[in-house]
Order: sequence, then C-alpha cells, then structure tokens
Amino acid sequence: MRQIKIYDTTLRDGSQMEGISFSVEDKLKLTRRLDELGVHYIEGGWPGSNPKDAEYFERMKNIPLKNAKLAAFGSTRRAYASVEEDLNLRMLIEAGTPVITLVGKSWDMQVHVVLGCSLEENLAMIKDSIAFCKSYGKEVFFDAEHFFDGYKNNPDYAMRCIHAAIEAGADAVVLCDTNGGRMPEEIAQAVEKVVEETRAIAATRPFDVGIHTHNDSELAVANTLIAVQKGATQVQGTINGYGERIGNANLCSIIANLELKYGYHTIGREKVKELTSVSRYFAEVANMAHDERLPYVGAKAFTHKAGLHVNAVAKSAETYEHLPPELVGNTRRVTISELGGRSNVLMKMAQFGLEAHTSSEQVRQVLEEVKRLEKEGFQFEDAEASFELLVLRAQPDYEPPFRLLDFMVVSESRNGGEFLSEATVKIKVGNEVMHTAADGDGPVNALDRAMRKALAPFYPELDPVHLTDYKVRVLDNESGTAATVRVWIQSTDGKSTWNTVGSSTNIIEASWLALADSLEYPLRSISKRRLR
Amino acid sequence: MRQIKIYDTTLRDGSQMEGISFSVEDKLKLTRRLDELGVHYIEGGWPGSNPKDAEYFERMKNIPLKNAKLAAFGSTRRAYASVEEDLNLRMLIEAGTPVITLVGKSWDMQVHVVLGCSLEENLAMIKDSIAFCKSYGKEVFFDAEHFFDGYKNNPDYAMRCIHAAIEAGADAVVLCDTNGGRMPEEIAQAVEKVVEETRAIAATRPFDVGIHTHNDSELAVANTLIAVQKGATQVQGTINGYGERIGNANLCSIIANLELKYGYHTIGREKVKELTSVSRYFAEVANMAHDERLPYVGAKAFTHKAGLHVNAVAKSAETYEHLPPELVGNTRRVTISELGGRSNVLMKMAQFGLEAHTSSEQVRQVLEEVKRLEKEGFQFEDAEASFELLVLRAQPDYEPPFRLLDFMVVSESRNGGEFLSEATVKIKVGNEVMHTAADGDGPVNALDRAMRKALAPFYPELDPVHLTDYKVRVLDNESGTAATVRVWIQSTDGKSTWNTVGSSTNIIEASWLALADSLEYPLRSISKRRLR
Repeated sequence: MRQIKIYDTTLRDGSQMEGISFSVEDKLKLTRRLDELGVHYIEGGWPGSNPKDAEYFERMKNIPLKNAKLAAFGSTRRAYASVEEDLNLRMLIEAGTPVITLVGKSWDMQVHVVLGCSLEENLAMIKDSIAFCKSYGKEVFFDAEHFFDGYKNNPDYAMRCIHAAIEAGADAVVLCDTNGGRMPEEIAQAVEKVVEETRAIAATRPFDVGIHTHNDSELAVANTLIAVQKGATQVQGTINGYGERIGNANLCSIIANLELKYGYHTIGREKVKELTSVSRYFAEVANMAHDERLPYVGAKAFTHKAGLHVNAVAKSAETYEHLPPELVGNTRRVTISELGGRSNVLMKMAQFGLEAHTSSEQVRQVLEEVKRLEKEGFQFEDAEASFELLVLRAQPDYEPPFRLLDFMVVSESRNGGEFLSEATVKIKVGNEVMHTAADGDGPVNALDRAMRKALAPFYPELDPVHLTDYKVRVLDNESGTAATVRVWIQSTDGKSTWNTVGSSTNIIEASWLALADSLEYPLRSISKRRLR
Repeated sequence: MRQIKIYDTTLRDGSQMEGISFSVEDKLKLTRRLDELGVHYIEGGWPGSNPKDAEYFERMKNIPLKNAKLAAFGSTRRAYASVEEDLNLRMLIEAGTPVITLVGKSWDMQVHVVLGCSLEENLAMIKDSIAFCKSYGKEVFFDAEHFFDGYKNNPDYAMRCIHAAIEAGADAVVLCDTNGGRMPEEIAQAVEKVVEETRAIAATRPFDVGIHTHNDSELAVANTLIAVQKGATQVQGTINGYGERIGNANLCSIIANLELKYGYHTIGREKVKELTSVSRYFAEVANMAHDERLPYVGAKAFTHKAGLHVNAVAKSAETYEHLPPELVGNTRRVTISELGGRSNVLMKMAQFGLEAHTSSEQVRQVLEEVKRLEKEGFQFEDAEASFELLVLRAQPDYEPPFRLLDFMVVSESRNGGEFLSEATVKIKVGNEVMHTAADGDGPVNALDRAMRKALAPFYPELDPVHLTDYKVRVLDNESGTAATVRVWIQSTDGKSTWNTVGSSTNIIEASWLALADSLEYPLRSISKRRLR
C-alpha cells in the first residue's frame, strides 16, 4: 500500500478565495484540526506577505503538532539580487517552521513577461533560494508554478527548472497546474516524465514528486489522481476545495478516492471517517455555508429523493450509493417528498428515533398528513424540523408551547414615501395571552420580531435563536400572484441549525407557518415540562 | 474533427435534484433554449411517471425544434409481462417524440435484488422493449444503468445486456455510472471494451456508444472526457451539473473542454460562447442562485483576488487564465455587475432598437442607473421589460402612464381563522386620482387587483393582461427575513409575454416594483398618445 503524503494549503492558497478571511485565531484552530486529521504537511501562510501570517508563525512556535509538519510559503529570491538581502527569504527562515515551500517559475513565457529576467537568471534564483533554505537545515519543497503550461510550451526549460531545484537539494518538486487548464492526459504525460527523470535521485535520498491542481476545468481531483497513478507521492490541496476562482483541488474528495477507491494510504481509514466533520468545521470557521453538494461530505451526498431509488435503497444500499456513507463519517438521508411513499416516512422516523414511540395508527396519520400537506405545497425534504414537529403533533400527549390567536401585518407607503411594515401578534402560552407589536424591514421581519417579543418572557432560551436563511418559492407559476408559495426558513441557536417550511397561497401565511415552526422546534421538549 | 453528440437530460435527470421543481412552462422555455444552443438531443421527461411530464410532451407536439431531437425517457417493460400491456411503454410511444431512451439493468446484482427476476428475463426485457419501440419507427437509446458497477462485478453479463440491446436494434447504448463511484481507469477500460465489441455494428449502421456519469467522486467530467477519448460519441449530462445527490456530469464544463481543449466538435465554437448565458438562464428558471464557482461559466471563473495575480494578469492574461473568458461568453471580473459594462448596455439597447433615440449622455445615465440597481439586487438578465422601461425613463419626454401616490396592504388572521389580505391603492393618471381597494389570495394578489381596478377606467387595453409567473429569491441569505429580496414577474396579454423585476428588503415593495413595471410596460407606447 503506497503512502501518499497530504499537503494542506487551505490556510494559504485556500484563503485566496473571495469571501474567506481567516483571523490568526481561526488559523490556529484549523491548524490543530488538520493536525488531528493526520495530514502530513500544513502550509500555514506566507510570512513575507502580511503581518497576520507573520503573527501566526510566531504563535505556532509554541504550539507543538502531533502529526503534521508546518510549512511556510514564499517565493524564490528576486531577480539579480542576493539571497542574503532578500527580505522574503529572511522571513521564511524566521518563521521557524521545519518545512519551507518555495514557489518559482518554470514556464519560459512567465520568466520573460512577469519576471522580466533571463531564463538562466530564473534557474539561478531557484538554485540559490533552495540552497539558502537548505543551509538552515530546512526541508525544502519547490512549487513549480505553471509547470504544465511550461512543459507544454517549452518542455526542455520546464525540466531544467526541475533539475535546478533537485541539484540545489529540494526534498520535493511540486508540479503545479496553476491556471487549472490542463487535461488529464497532459498531466499524466508530464508527471510520468518527471518521475522517470527523478527516479535516480529518489533512490539515493528521500524525495517526492508532488501535484498541485486547480479546478478551472472541473478536473482538479481527476488530475491529482492521475498524477498519483503516474508516481506522484505528495498531494497538495485544500479542505472543501477552497481557493481562488473555482478553487483548489478538494482534499476531501482526493483523500476519500485515494483511500477508499484506490487503496493508497494517506491519513488512514479511521481518520477518513472524520472527513465530513472536518469539512463542516472548516466551512463554519470560514463563515461560509457548508456546500450541500460536496462529494462524499456534503449533506446531499447520500440523499435519496426519487421513490424508485428509495425502494431500491431499502432493498440494497449499494444500488444507489457508491459506498457506505459511514466510511467518510456522513449519513444516509432520505428526503420526504412527493416522489416517495410510506417507506420514506418510516425511514425518516427511524432516523429521528421516533418510530419506537409511534403506533402504526399514528404512522398512518403522519403519512396522510404529509400527503395532504405536500399536495398543498409543503415539502419536507429539506425541512426536517417541520417534519419532526408534524410527527410529535400526531402523538396524543403533545402540548404545543404556544398558540396563535390573532395577527395582522400592514405594509404601506404614503405620498410615494418609504415602505413601512408593522405587525401585531396575539398568542397564548399556557393560560396567559400576550399581545405585541413590532415593525420590521418587511412584513415577515415585522412578524418575526413581534413573535419574539411575545414569547421572550416565557422562553428566555429563544434569545440566541435567530433566522439564518429565508427562501421563497412560487409553486404553480401559472396562477401568478394567486399561486401557492412555499417558504423555507433556516434557524440556529448558535450550536445547531434546523429548517422549517410553510406553504399557502398567501405568502404571509406561508411565512408565518415556517416562522412558527422555527420557534416551536427548539421548545418542543421543554414546553411540556414548563406548562405542567 | 470528431463529432460528439450532446444529450441533455436537465429536464429529466437534472430535475431529480432537491430544490428543483420545473413547471410545464419552465420546461418549454428550457427546451427552446437548449434547442437554440444546438444540443443534439433533449430528454424532456418521463411521460409515465407524472401528469406534468405527460402534459409537457403533449404540448411539445406543436412546438417544432430547429436543431435538437426530443427524447422521452422510460424503463424497459416489467418482468414477466408483455410489452403490449406495459402502460409505461405505451405512454412513451404516445409521447410522440422521435427518440425514446429506455433505461434497463446491466448489473446482475441489481437484477436479482431490485427486479427480483432471472438474468435471462432481464435480457428479454431489454430486447422486447427496444424492439417494441423500434417497431414504431423510433430512434431508440438504451441507458445501461449501473453499467460500470456491473462490468466490474460481472463483465460477461454486463456485455450480454449491451449485445441484447444492439440485437434488438438500439441506435445507441449509453453506459451509465449511476452511482458516480467509478474511477477514470475503470471507465476507460469498460468503454474501450464496448467500443471494440460494437465496432462491427457501427460500421454497418448509425450507432453510438454514449456515456452518462454522476459526480459523487468529483469525477463526472473527467470520466466523461476519458470515455470520449476511448471512443464514446454521445455524451449525456445536465446544464450546471444539476441532478440528484451531488449531481450529473456538468455539460457546460464538458462542452467547453471537448471543444476548446480537445478540439472535438459538439455544438460548435460560436455556440460555446452562449454557455455562460445558458448556465445563468437555467439557474434563473430553476429559481436557484447561479453558482459563482461553476468552472468556465461561474462569476468567479475569471476573477482575481491575490495582488500577485492581478499584477500578473495586467502583464499577460494567460498568466492566470487558462483561456480567454470570451470563448465561453464569460468576462474577466473587474466590475460588480453582469450588465454593468457600457458595451453590454449598448448591445442591449440595440437589441430593443432604442439606441437611435438615445444620446450618449442618456447612455451614461442608464449605465449608472443599472449599476445602482444591480447593487441593490435587481437583475435584468431575464427581465427585459424592466430594462426597456429604465431606458425609456431616461428619455426626457417620457411620460409615465400612471404614478403611485399611496398604498397599504393588510394581512391578518383573527381567532385562528382564515388569512385575509386587503390592499388599498391611490394612483394618479394625468390629472385624475383614483383610490381603490381589493382583497386577494395574498398581499401581492390584493395589490395586483387594486391596481387593475384603478387603471381599468383609463386603460381598457389592460383587461387581457395578467400575471403568468411570480418568483421570489432571497439574495443575502445570511440576514434572514431582513434580507434583500428579488421578485420576478412574467405577464402576458395573450399574444406576447414580458418579464419584470423588483428588489427591496421589503418583499411587498419588491413585488410592487415588479408589478408596476408589468402594468406600465404594455402602456409604454400608448400613454403619451392618450395623455396629450
């Protein structure tokens, strides 16, 4: 079982993504999580590029890693200057990491146009910079930027850059498809060549050929896999494929494919089970929604909708799952939808651990209620909190934490002026009636605020609860503004999130229903206790 | 230059995606757009599975296609039953399409576990069903479900299924990686085998080997490309990779890679330039956010963040772009908006025949107004009526047919009773003021009806005008119910249709803006005449 080393660059190349801005604290947290996951190298940042990265490396000096080696990233020295005077190289050494990764040019066009120096000078820059870092006892990797474009246009020069790095003592040369534009055959051919030409070196000392790809042609994962098949032993990428433009190669998919499909050893099968939680954790720290459609680790990766599929999955999971979701720490999810039937509802109830408390008469009731509501436009496939409430309400002893008596929402504009929305709400909790009013950025926002005002005195635990997403879909489009509208709401209390749904021809009613569920859901277990 | 045929299944397999629910009207629009794009086959749906698809095929009988052939999808006959009595096959024939695509099993495990019949019976099901459809003069494709899993586990039986299809007269066999779990090498080997074994048939009559992949291992595009390299000549996929779980193979990336990287002929290089707008159009009709990280066609595909990159791009675009964005109709992102560029606005105005009446100062005004509105959440991509009004309003002599003075909408429910919505509207036409009230199925419907009541005495030509579609999208999801909302409305007078847009943090205001445009648009030319 060949060992493939995983080099994570989420904290450096991944953070180039629009919308991502890690604080130093974030980076420290993520470093620890990557170390626990068992990746071999963690590229923490570019100490010469900004003070935040410099601070990160300073603080990392006091944080020992269990598995991974920390790498600092920087570029080869400037043209026609000495390494000793190069501030960038100086800061790389001072970062105090065991590994230094140096990026340099390997495409002749780039040397001319971007560096504006001679091809020979670029070779000297590669050699000098690597030798300089080696003289401090560092493990040094050479990231050959645009290697595959260079190899396509001037293979001789691209290979000379590789040889220059090796002669200077590089412990790995990493072949980069910087623009993400090369096809798998081109990657295969070039990697094969480099592996072949460096075989003699690799026999005498530890040496890796690495691969670093981008997803601009939707081939980052495939190009990484083919490079490994052709002999690459170090893989660079990012968690969730974060990165500039379309992103870097997604390590979650790569690790899963290498371990579970090809049988290579990367972080080990036990650690592969953490991929889903690591993926979610990174999304959370990056303050981005976790992409449901991420292969292997996304919420939809093992989700079944069509009735045909669900029946088949019930017979044999292999039928519509390429592997058991547990292997990557994910779970099977069956959506409740118009396309499914009784088997869907039962599987769903089992998932919530509700089936034990539910008689078969109640199951029948739930099923009928689901059918009725779906006909009215509800859709529970992505609104599990509303579904769970529906099941709870079918149980005879369920006592709702509040009941709605009256409400009114007014939206108006006078003399062409500002739009205003105001809501009044009358609710009953136990035997008490609350009547409140609030305004808001729109009718639903006003309603939300009036509801919270009414519930706050009874349920202080609702304080941290807030809406994080609100979606509206018009169902039977043909009927225009008299059409049925489905509203979907996501809420959080800071720890967990839940989704609810409402549907009506009246958008305010649909919003109200989803809103009420979103507030009832976190109270579902405490309400009984309180009110008895 | 080898011709690869593109088979789009967005309307069938793509619509299995959670969150997608196309109306019949949506499907007709998308069919027309796919036909214009020049794909070779459009799989419209599964007529036997639901009444909506049956209606779609009924209506398609009167809509001629210029380039594409329409395909109806269904499964092989049921086990131990006759084709004549098979309702599913009957409905496929009645769909009246030139092409029928039949899905059948080719994995022995599936035959045993899911169908519960003998391996021989499955072969008979394949043969009978294809022969039945062929007897009606149809072009028949056989989708070999789970082919690659079957080929891995029992290659002999998988190949027997292929041969059964061919013997029965199938015009193509499409090899499906249904679970999306197979690696490129496995795809390559199996496709090679099928191409080799069917070479003799392909020499005597038109015959294609097709490829149909899913993205569960993040390899759908790579697996499609390698199949083509190994001789597949039909490619199945969906726009934007829509589909169940992680999705189908993304045709946008596949077409771009095949045409621009490999030099195959698919829809032709001129049409490839439409990929970005097609991708956006499909997202819009699916009422989903356009994924910014879609390769080639996403907003971030040619966006640069890192200072290093931006400098280099300024020196030479090739430095950090794998190809010129114009080739796929995308743009390097410098401005914030889609229409933002002056040339875009001019192109759009020329399209409406408005540029002759517009001074360069007005063009500048329009451009600024577009930028301002797009920043507020408007999008004119699929709302050309609103854009045309915006240009008209920049002309000094434009007199709006009506002006809004006041309005108010109330939505309420008392004692847990029915939800009611009522609107009052005060508008000015010429020097007259109208004050009206109406109720409706929701606040927007009530507003719509009050507006019509007010305008009817002045503009009887509005009588046939009505809304046919109403969509709502929440833009910055993070802010919950206080988020910006975009409302899109489609209207018709029975002869032509037009689309309008409104945006606001208040859903009622956003609806009002789109609604007002939808009523002003058909009056734009007559209003002056009337009021003078």
